[in-house]
Amino acid sequence: MSDWLEELRGLLPADVLVEDPDVVAAYAVDRAGQEHGTARALARVRTTEQVSTCLEVADRHGTPVVTRGAGSGLCGGANALDGCLLLSTERLDRVVELDRANRVMVVEPGVVTATIRSLAAEAGLHYPPDPGSVGFATIGGNVATNAGGLCCVKYGVTGDFVRALEVVLPSGEVVRTGHRTVKGVAGLDLTSLLVGSEGALGVITGITLGLLPAPPPAATVVATFDEFTDAGRAIAEVVAQGLVPSLLEVMDRATVTAVDRMTGMGLGEPAAMLLAQSDTTHAAEDAERLAGIFTSCGATDIAHTDDAEEGAQLMAARRLAYEALEPLGTLLVDDVCVPVDQLPGLIATIERIADEVGLTIATVGHAGDGNLHPNIVHDGHDPASVAAARRAFDAILTAALEVGGTVTGEHGVGRLKPDWVGREVGPVSARLQAGIKEVFDPHGILNPGRGLPLP
Amino acid sequence: MSDWLEELRGLLPADVLVEDPDVVAAYAVDRAGQEHGTARALARVRTTEQVSTCLEVADRHGTPVVTRGAGSGLCGGANALDGCLLLSTERLDRVVELDRANRVMVVEPGVVTATIRSLAAEAGLHYPPDPGSVGFATIGGNVATNAGGLCCVKYGVTGDFVRALEVVLPSGEVVRTGHRTVKGVAGLDLTSLLVGSEGALGVITGITLGLLPAPPPAATVVATFDEFTDAGRAIAEVVAQGLVPSLLEVMDRATVTAVDRMTGMGLGEPAAMLLAQSDTTHAAEDAERLAGIFTSCGATDIAHTDDAEEGAQLMAARRLAYEALEPLGTLLVDDVCVPVDQLPGLIATIERIADEVGLTIATVGHAGDGNLHPNIVHDGHDPASVAAARRAFDAILTAALEVGGTVTGEHGVGRLKPDWVGREVGPVSARLQAGIKEVFDPHGILNPGRGLPLP
Repeated sequence: MSDWLEELRGLLPADVLVEDPDVVAAYAVDRAGQEHGTARALARVRTTEQVSTCLEVADRHGTPVVTRGAGSGLCGGANALDGCLLLSTERLDRVVELDRANRVMVVEPGVVTATIRSLAAEAGLHYPPDPGSVGFATIGGNVATNAGGLCCVKYGVTGDFVRALEVVLPSGEVVRTGHRTVKGVAGLDLTSLLVGSEGALGVITGITLGLLPAPPPAATVVATFDEFTDAGRAIAEVVAQGLVPSLLEVMDRATVTAVDRMTGMGLGEPAAMLLAQSDTTHAAEDAERLAGIFTSCGATDIAHTDDAEEGAQLMAARRLAYEALEPLGTLLVDDVCVPVDQLPGLIATIERIADEVGLTIATVGHAGDGNLHPNIVHDGHDPASVAAARRAFDAILTAALEVGGTVTGEHGVGRLKPDWVGREVGPVSARLQAGIKEVFDPHGILNPGRGLPLP
Repeated sequence: MSDWLEELRGLLPADVLVEDPDVVAAYAVDRAGQEHGTARALARVRTTEQVSTCLEVADRHGTPVVTRGAGSGLCGGANALDGCLLLSTERLDRVVELDRANRVMVVEPGVVTATIRSLAAEAGLHYPPDPGSVGFATIGGNVATNAGGLCCVKYGVTGDFVRALEVVLPSGEVVRTGHRTVKGVAGLDLTSLLVGSEGALGVITGITLGLLPAPPPAATVVATFDEFTDAGRAIAEVVAQGLVPSLLEVMDRATVTAVDRMTGMGLGEPAAMLLAQSDTTHAAEDAERLAGIFTSCGATDIAHTDDAEEGAQLMAARRLAYEALEPLGTLLVDDVCVPVDQLPGLIATIERIADEVGLTIATVGHAGDGNLHPNIVHDGHDPASVAAARRAFDAILTAALEVGGTVTGEHGVGRLKPDWVGREVGPVSARLQAGIKEVFDPHGILNPGRGLPLP
């Protein structure tokens, strides 16, 4: 039997199939920086046909294929496996169509998410999803992980905007799922099944997105609190009063302090900072109401504006959180989501866990969704510190499950959490998921070991 | 081998297992009135355990099981098959929990959808989906068909509110899918796969719904047009101006005339009637804008109100459409969804088809979604008329596919459309769906032949 790589050399142009070990290695890891293997080659495909070629050959040889977008993932789901073919979708970057009359955009997976948002805005439309990596992440990865972001509290996640997909199967066959129309129930919802499937079922080569009308400019409110519990009460009160802000974020003391040290913004060291926006036609009124709730819950300092540029300045502290935390040490980023009324309790638990393991845990989160990202700061070169970080990571997941939450709100399973997801969903669900995997990928070549729960 | 029915007699209480042929026959057909077989028995289950018992026994004997809610389906998906067990979920009707702080409701499948809406409203919350049958349909059937309704233009369909499910598999095992939290990406999205699966993958016994804050009272605008194309332009203009009404419905002349004859409302015989609502905090302003668009597009008569009761009176014409059409003859109800800008063209095509086959086709539809229900009025006792109706039905589906639409926007596949859905999704998708069916239902006992595309 001939070698798969040799076979691909004869089928793909030289600029598509990359074997230079330095270049290949540059594509071997995502932003989580977890352990990874060594790929044999990298295919920077330009067409759906080239994807079919790669998969058909790999499937015949039983070669693992790891598909990746921009590598902005946070759970190692796109990390290389030993001997694998890395399949990069970055050059599948055409905007195929923007249909203003029907508020539909058709794109290839390599288009940067921020580009989709700005193209939509130029047409008077809105593509809400805005994961932290929106400026460099690509839509294919966003779809493959069902990425969230700051918008979700009002607008939902990536999958809520995906109407149809073009997907290549390991057989090399191309399948189209879903519908271009607003509604459609023609058979099983394969589109939703593929959204968030983390490269384990097929390779996405085309995406039809439904867009919204552009909202008015957002008004912004930022408040600081001396007691974290006050911020927790404020979040619960926003929900209880039936407000639907377009953004409702929280940062803890460790995060605010880190941002302040990096930027000199003069944020002080509050126990918590809340950031909220509204983008209705009466956003300024909404912002007044939000500010009123924050004040009544004990906010010590409040700034609000209905000017978009001033709002962006107020939001800068949140946008810079991850960059501000990175210099503190190695970050193990967790991602739990709990019922919103469980948020204050979970925050207290995280503080207790930080004390117990003796590490700083800096928490930022999409408060309105109950989705927190505790960043466990440790020394990645010190095995004892790594072990302590892992203990904290596991303790946070346990705590989230205990209050009816999930072990991943938006980052996904990747290589970090197959065991934890297995614990969350249980053996029957894990067996069904393994069965579905086998229907799509009978030889198990697509991102083996990732994205699905361990039984 | 013992008989499955004999075995079930020993396992289920007498009031659960019904064998009286008259009672069983009353459960043998849904609202589409299509052909149906004769069931051997009916199980009116009260517990998840009884569902497990039914399925485990049926699976072991290879007995087909047809699950049904209230029988409000419009494509024969719940019609009896010869020799089957009918499984009714109507008595699984507990409201398990209403969690106001997290805007979550947990229900069993037999709860009537209108009950869910009113319980939510009493708690200051909102469950939007409102299929035409909302007053008697049950939530289990709504989930199993991913039902739509009038709300979808703003709020989406049933599946957009389903967070988690409890489902019994043919093995009798119970699986829980999804998450109670706002977000969650722990493994493949089995919840979305089960939504709309029409009883072919499992039996839904528990549903966790996410709710919204209650919106303000809606303002209502009703307009009539002398030319249908003017109404079509008005719909397109609403979308183009970025308005998001909470309802945007259309009725054609045949429908308005029928409603007027039944009610004596004095509607006249306009070529088209548009009905729109807005439920934002500034609904009256929105209604003014909608009325302005309708006027500028040539509306001949406009009524609008921001009083909820007057609005309900204006809406009555739409709510009564199906009842008004039923006396005209046998109705074959179609359900196509097209890109919104294709709506005027599709309406013209439907009028042409009606002329060609010599039948009245009365069209109502969710205009804002591009989702039309042409009601083909014919004589169900006259084979020639039935054949003509079927020709019209097929011609409408062909026309919808030709302009990028789907053969079912919200009613589903049922027994009416497996062939058409197969044509829409293609053989690779059909094969994947058959494979998924086999993972959930290896012996093919669940609603065989329904809900999935024919390859």
